[in-house]
Amino acid sequence: MPHIDLGNDEFGIRSLLTYRPETARPMGLLAEVLMRGPGTLTHGERELIAAYVSARNECNYCTASHAASASVRLPGGVTLVDQVLAGPETAPITAKLAALLRIAGAVQQSGKAVREEDVAAAGEAGATDLEIHDTVLIAAAFCMFNRYVDGLATTARPDPAGYLAAAQLNINQGYVATLGQSGASQQAGSAAD
Amino acid sequence: MPHIDLGNDEFGIRSLLTYRPETARPMGLLAEVLMRGPGTLTHGERELIAAYVSARNECNYCTASHAASASVRLPGGVTLVDQVLAGPETAPITAKLAALLRIAGAVQQSGKAVREEDVAAAGEAGATDLEIHDTVLIAAAFCMFNRYVDGLATTARPDPAGYLAAAQLNINQGYVATLGQSGASQQAGSAAD
Repeated sequence: MPHIDLGNDEFGIRSLLTYRPETARPMGLLAEVLMRGPGTLTHGERELIAAYVSARNECNYCTASHAASASVRLPGGVTLVDQVLAGPETAPITAKLAALLRIAGAVQQSGKAVREEDVAAAGEAGATDLEIHDTVLIAAAFCMFNRYVDGLATTARPDPAGYLAAAQLNINQGYVATLGQSGASQQAGSAAD
Repeated sequence: MPHIDLGNDEFGIRSLLTYRPETARPMGLLAEVLMRGPGTLTHGERELIAAYVSARNECNYCTASHAASASVRLPGGVTLVDQVLAGPETAPITAKLAALLRIAGAVQQSGKAVREEDVAAAGEAGATDLEIHDTVLIAAAFCMFNRYVDGLATTARPDPAGYLAAAQLNINQGYVATLGQSGASQQAGSAAD
């Protein structure tokens, strides 16, 4: 049960976005630009970074949401996502993505945990400065989203299939599809998971 | 020295906001609504929560920035801010603010670290649900800002007085004063510190 009365029965971050539309708007915009805006990381790679950080933060709602999105986006599907969440070192991913996930894992601990050599390794594996930047910011942003979702003890979806349905709607509509309308986050796929 | 070439000589988060204007805009909007938007926590209390979380994350730039802002905003000034950063349990603050800082400290560790009894104690000390919500989100957001600033190894201000000058400009102009213009974050006080 949520720590405060949110006045709605939505799940995870959606219940918070509905509760506080003033902060929902910039959070939805941030999720949209981070996960779907201009950049050379694929949408699937970004969702995978989000799922990986959320799993390390033990945020069940965000992990399930972004694992579902990544599984729809990536050719390797659920199998690949599960392998990455179990340990990116042994997952069949590119050296570049493995290096970026190492950076994301460091950010999850602390900004100061990102080492010069981690960044150099990512560069040697072909990551651009912008891709390193975006990885750090996606990882940092999910340290916020995860803490928001769990810090107020929001409710996870009772049905695992619900995450996949929300992921599919999100792919069609984006993270801010209905922002600015009333009930901004009531439609699945309309705001940051 | 920053981990990547940011192409500018600004300090802390400003160098990142200039480097990546696409993500700067929603981050500035989020900082503005969190720190200065509608709500019943005073601006000084919000800045104090931001400084406290940043100090626990050992982010020197953000701690100095928000400690300076809090010191200008709060009647107790620098002395009070220093006392809170040294340990809110013994600082001369209201029971409500002490309870909210306990929640913020839990969020800094993990969303799951916020306990039912911490929230109940804040309510008993007079905090509203909205104030508890805003405290959790401010603390969560600074877990993002801090990781962003340190994860890319941005440069702190060489001159401590610079933080106070930036805080004063921020009070006058807000966190998004020049967003949407080119060089959005080049003017002190124009975006999230």
